[in-house]
Amino acid sequence: MVGYGFMGKAHSNAYLKVNRFFPELARRPVLKCLCARNADKARAFADVWGYESVETDWRRLVERRDIDVVDIGSPNDTHRDIAVAAAASGKWVLCEKPLARDVAEAEEMVAAVERAGVPNMVWYNYRRVPAISLARQLVNEGRIGRPFHYRATYLQDWTISADVPQGGATLWRLDVDVAGSGVTGDLLAHSIDTAMWLNGPIVRVVADAETFVKERVHQETGKPRPVGIDDACAFLARFANGSMGTFESTRYARGRKNYNTFELNGADGSLHFDLEDPQYLDFFEYRRPDGGKVEDHLTGWRRVHVTNFEHPYMDRWWVPGCTIGYEHTFVNALADFLAGAESGSAAQPDFRCALQTQKVCDAVLQSARAGAWVDAPTVIGVE
Amino acid sequence: MVGYGFMGKAHSNAYLKVNRFFPELARRPVLKCLCARNADKARAFADVWGYESVETDWRRLVERRDIDVVDIGSPNDTHRDIAVAAAASGKWVLCEKPLARDVAEAEEMVAAVERAGVPNMVWYNYRRVPAISLARQLVNEGRIGRPFHYRATYLQDWTISADVPQGGATLWRLDVDVAGSGVTGDLLAHSIDTAMWLNGPIVRVVADAETFVKERVHQETGKPRPVGIDDACAFLARFANGSMGTFESTRYARGRKNYNTFELNGADGSLHFDLEDPQYLDFFEYRRPDGGKVEDHLTGWRRVHVTNFEHPYMDRWWVPGCTIGYEHTFVNALADFLAGAESGSAAQPDFRCALQTQKVCDAVLQSARAGAWVDAPTVIGVE
Amino acid sequence: MVGYGFMGKAHSNAYLKVNRFFPELARRPVLKCLCARNADKARAFADVWGYESVETDWRRLVERRDIDVVDIGSPNDTHRDIAVAAAASGKWVLCEKPLARDVAEAEEMVAAVERAGVPNMVWYNYRRVPAISLARQLVNEGRIGRPFHYRATYLQDWTISADVPQGGATLWRLDVDVAGSGVTGDLLAHSIDTAMWLNGPIVRVVADAETFVKERVHQETGKPRPVGIDDACAFLARFANGSMGTFESTRYARGRKNYNTFELNGADGSLHFDLEDPQYLDFFEYRRPDGGKVEDHLTGWRRVHVTNFEHPYMDRWWVPGCTIGYEHTFVNALADFLAGAESGSAAQPDFRCALQTQKVCDAVLQSARAGAWVDAPTVIGVE
Amino acid sequence: MVGYGFMGKAHSNAYLKVNRFFPELARRPVLKCLCARNADKARAFADVWGYESVETDWRRLVERRDIDVVDIGSPNDTHRDIAVAAAASGKWVLCEKPLARDVAEAEEMVAAVERAGVPNMVWYNYRRVPAISLARQLVNEGRIGRPFHYRATYLQDWTISADVPQGGATLWRLDVDVAGSGVTGDLLAHSIDTAMWLNGPIVRVVADAETFVKERVHQETGKPRPVGIDDACAFLARFANGSMGTFESTRYARGRKNYNTFELNGADGSLHFDLEDPQYLDFFEYRRPDGGKVEDHLTGWRRVHVTNFEHPYMDRWWVPGCTIGYEHTFVNALADFLAGAESGSAAQPDFRCALQTQKVCDAVLQSARAGAWVDAPTVIGVE
Repeated sequence: MVGYGFMGKAHSNAYLKVNRFFPELARRPVLKCLCARNADKARAFADVWGYESVETDWRRLVERRDIDVVDIGSPNDTHRDIAVAAAASGKWVLCEKPLARDVAEAEEMVAAVERAGVPNMVWYNYRRVPAISLARQLVNEGRIGRPFHYRATYLQDWTISADVPQGGATLWRLDVDVAGSGVTGDLLAHSIDTAMWLNGPIVRVVADAETFVKERVHQETGKPRPVGIDDACAFLARFANGSMGTFESTRYARGRKNYNTFELNGADGSLHFDLEDPQYLDFFEYRRPDGGKVEDHLTGWRRVHVTNFEHPYMDRWWVPGCTIGYEHTFVNALADFLAGAESGSAAQPDFRCALQTQKVCDAVLQSARAGAWVDAPTVIGVE
Repeated sequence: MVGYGFMGKAHSNAYLKVNRFFPELARRPVLKCLCARNADKARAFADVWGYESVETDWRRLVERRDIDVVDIGSPNDTHRDIAVAAAASGKWVLCEKPLARDVAEAEEMVAAVERAGVPNMVWYNYRRVPAISLARQLVNEGRIGRPFHYRATYLQDWTISADVPQGGATLWRLDVDVAGSGVTGDLLAHSIDTAMWLNGPIVRVVADAETFVKERVHQETGKPRPVGIDDACAFLARFANGSMGTFESTRYARGRKNYNTFELNGADGSLHFDLEDPQYLDFFEYRRPDGGKVEDHLTGWRRVHVTNFEHPYMDRWWVPGCTIGYEHTFVNALADFLAGAESGSAAQPDFRCALQTQKVCDAVLQSARAGAWVDAPTVIGVE
Repeated sequence: MVGYGFMGKAHSNAYLKVNRFFPELARRPVLKCLCARNADKARAFADVWGYESVETDWRRLVERRDIDVVDIGSPNDTHRDIAVAAAASGKWVLCEKPLARDVAEAEEMVAAVERAGVPNMVWYNYRRVPAISLARQLVNEGRIGRPFHYRATYLQDWTISADVPQGGATLWRLDVDVAGSGVTGDLLAHSIDTAMWLNGPIVRVVADAETFVKERVHQETGKPRPVGIDDACAFLARFANGSMGTFESTRYARGRKNYNTFELNGADGSLHFDLEDPQYLDFFEYRRPDGGKVEDHLTGWRRVHVTNFEHPYMDRWWVPGCTIGYEHTFVNALADFLAGAESGSAAQPDFRCALQTQKVCDAVLQSARAGAWVDAPTVIGVE
Repeated sequence: MVGYGFMGKAHSNAYLKVNRFFPELARRPVLKCLCARNADKARAFADVWGYESVETDWRRLVERRDIDVVDIGSPNDTHRDIAVAAAASGKWVLCEKPLARDVAEAEEMVAAVERAGVPNMVWYNYRRVPAISLARQLVNEGRIGRPFHYRATYLQDWTISADVPQGGATLWRLDVDVAGSGVTGDLLAHSIDTAMWLNGPIVRVVADAETFVKERVHQETGKPRPVGIDDACAFLARFANGSMGTFESTRYARGRKNYNTFELNGADGSLHFDLEDPQYLDFFEYRRPDGGKVEDHLTGWRRVHVTNFEHPYMDRWWVPGCTIGYEHTFVNALADFLAGAESGSAAQPDFRCALQTQKVCDAVLQSARAGAWVDAPTVIGVE
């Protein structure tokens, strides 16, 4: 495990729990080593979570023979080097999203894992929110029909104050050199991954981005520095299936904390989701797959409380009506990764799949700079 | 029209609109006379609403030959005398709810209209909220199955302050001599009427009532007087069909303004309604009338926006998605009354039907006094 | 009154009710004449609503000396000619939205009413939804602070079927020659009017539009004809105050019937509204106008049930907790128009104000055609 | 740990996690032994969760010197004997709710732990839903004012089918001999514990209970047997502070899966909670503790997303906007228990506190049998 931050904690928790709730898995993760630059903090974190050892240089981690899997939870500017080296040494590689700071880095990483032939996955954990997995299932069951519209927002409000600094261990997401971009890589990447999983490839975009706070103190130097990230970014899109998309992301939407929503409208039905109420998938049924129409006086948005045993992953957790939360998306994802690695069928999104999301992100940023529509090239080999 | 208060306004508006939205009705109400004790206020109200004349004594109104219908919108203590006299002179009689202050008065009124054979109706207007009419339709379609539970609340918060006086033209609802009771006659009567319309007769009850503010100034005398009404009343009930009921009403529920809700749970489905969101009926479908079960991963509460042309009354108003409001329940009720009077099939609830609600109200108040279960006698001749 | 369609009914109802609920108004509308091409239908409509006479040619209507106000509720292609003629003959002019099919027509209309100096208003009725008026009030009270984002959707689903024809008396909104545009003039115009009322001028846009169903039978000829309107249109915008906007409108969002929503995010607070639940304004308060912050453990979206006497217009209607609906927006607007005409201070939006909305609509359509950002020119003289 | 059922899993997960998320705790639970009658299943469960050993007789567990804490997660009919023996041997005792099958058993248990002077707690885990803890905090801050009403429901729907058997390892909750009662001990006990935590002692009740399905097959014998439990139970209550209570619980409310709700109405504010949406506490603020009233046009129910760092327990989990779920209530409770045992201030509810809930449960069942009001005696020594 590389990194002890927010993601280090979320991933460690997943390793701790996965075999308890997915006991059929043959593989049982062992927490061999926690790797981070700050030795004291790494040691403290390793103690709490039960890591056997600590490294302060990821190069040493990658070289170790007793380690089979490297999980990259450190800032974006470290993803490429660690992943490429880990793959080269034959280790399985898990990587936090976004895959990289840009397409060039991401392509190197895809090449590395494919050359090495190692199992790999990017932690787009929200696919494993049971309600989102259910959305995918309903699409696959043909309940939506011809799609017309997809709209997504990912709204937060934690950077409104100009007093929030940038950089350092906890605020590197505001430092463009480390993060690569702002909300585009951090939030829109999630929205895009979900959108393409549910509605297929995005083929072109036109975007608008803004940096509302132009200067922030850097945590390490204590000095003001221009802000290089996008604080907010919205774009219009076209999907390969002809439907229209609207996407918006910001950290300046007062009152929205983790408001990651999507809505898909098709001729036969619609879906709506909001990550602040992750236990629900809203479903409007107009025509059933057998062709029958819902009676006109009974139509309505149905709020499915996604906690039945029949819902994705929910037979592993508690009983109907009992919710799970944020952390469980990582456990579900890890279980899928381990099962996929065992069976030889890679859990998605792997690096190649995540590269496609990266390409859309780059197109969005390019469009925002150019003020024009930009095509999003397709990655060969992604379903 | 007797009374120019809140109900005088709501009823007058219904007379003004009914033929515009229900143009097929043969009868066209003419606003002949507004009757109220205060001549100046009556005149002013008559001018605004277009009444042709004014009377200050309802006895004169009842005697007039040019008047065919008497609508009683004055305080509860006037209902019996006016209704009995109006029926005796052969007029159609409409009466605000509750029918009377108690069963004894109500029985006189039923006898009077039945002796005279005149069309009569009590303004339990909420039956004509389209969502509540739809609830009745779904019950009739067999979508709920064997009923287990019915729960209703009617919560308001406007009398919490001890500074609110009692009595007089606007606050007679707090004066027990005029109103007969507090929330039981004012609010629970609505809940009971709806409950029995949807779930059949209530056969026994156990109640608890409270007067939180023990003394209030009387508006007319300016002097403090003990408060005789029930400020809050809750009761448990059994329906003739064996299902269990819970009812609660108060004017001390901070934040609830007109929170008139019900929920009906049956083996095959459930319904939920809230008058503060009157455009919705929530429906949980478990088993369809054809016996088919909803698939387990698709079950959920469906929020039906009751504004389709196929919904009760909604073909008369605007277009799907456009809401109607409080006042339209009176127009819908009046249209049903006029249509019923024309066709000879009485619109419900007529006086006899409302007597049944009165009997449950009296049983509730008696139970609260006695601290024991009380049977609610059935009125012969109510479906 | 010109037109007996949906808008003819909504406006007639407003004339009928306005003096009853706003009795202080000196002007009392008299329904002199209903004008429509089909004499039989016009006569029938006039009978139901109490119009004194009928005309089948609007030119005759405009010439009549006994008529003081002309209200244009007929299809968009008639707006300009009637408005220009009516203004020229000194009549007050009310016009349904959108003001015209395009900016050129709209400018002629503005010139006509300003030359004649007659009171004029465009029926952007949603400004008079009490919750939207309250939104404006909260903005004016300084509760939102520096604005960052405005997002609006206006979603419907009634044209998804390719079997819906275009043209004729009821479906002219699908016929580009009559309507001028599709959802842009019909739905986005509302969204834009509200947005600029709450958040100031829009200065540039980039749009994407689509026609999903390429051909529909024309009602009058019975023959298929290409569809010229935009079925769906989305755009990104910048406001003069620097905030970012996203707008989307469609008639292909299954399950959305009249889903006209907006959200405004500012540094100190946020607002959200949905026309399917028009009784609510959602308000997130972060910092009060006195500078005080809401305590961190108490922050949350507050769902204001806009039915208190202290809310805009609500002292005119019923009592707290009782909702009003779609039709009341027209009554409120008419009351403001009459009061404004009496006092000499024009109710908004007048023709000039509506021209600004028209300019944004035209910029949106131009951008969609060009695939590029387009500036929206400002109308001089609009606040 | 005694028991490997649903509760065995929930508690084991808490032991696994507590030191990771509450690293300051000096005590670090070690999973020494899993005890259950079925040796094979016990062994399998122990393997998954990492228990060091297995016992099939709780008497042996209690005798073991290497065990400091006994956690009773087995069916209700085993609680007393295990708890009494464990306390006698000086072990700390944790017990699933309800404390016992009836007051007599519960009193023995209280006497045993108090005689032994050992730390003890009952797993009324819902107190540690952050939103419910926040409710308690708001009450303590004086934000509710004089309380008038408390209403609670706990509705489920999993036993509607008459085909569900009773008894055995998984359905002992339907077997009165094992469970003691039906929904009263299982669901109402939770509602009562929460109610008294938030609103003080309940002093008298009147109840109505029903068994809808009169006979069910017993899982062990395969033969039909009368059902002895209450399928549904509702009661009216009075609190010591004079406020009125309504409580209802059932397993026959179609569409409600774990619908554990409460609402508290006071003169100055109201609270509402629903366990199916556990991330929210709804708060209506009327008057602030400083005496200031919320402005009339700003009043509304505020939906607090209880995921801020300032909310109870939430600084231990993820970041604002990220939800936790059902299992975390057990971790939070365990952390409080360990902290309390360390500091010498017992975490609530301890056995004595849970005895008070048991007394109300018994009074409810007695009232349902007798058809009369019954007093709920107070336990001396509970705050």
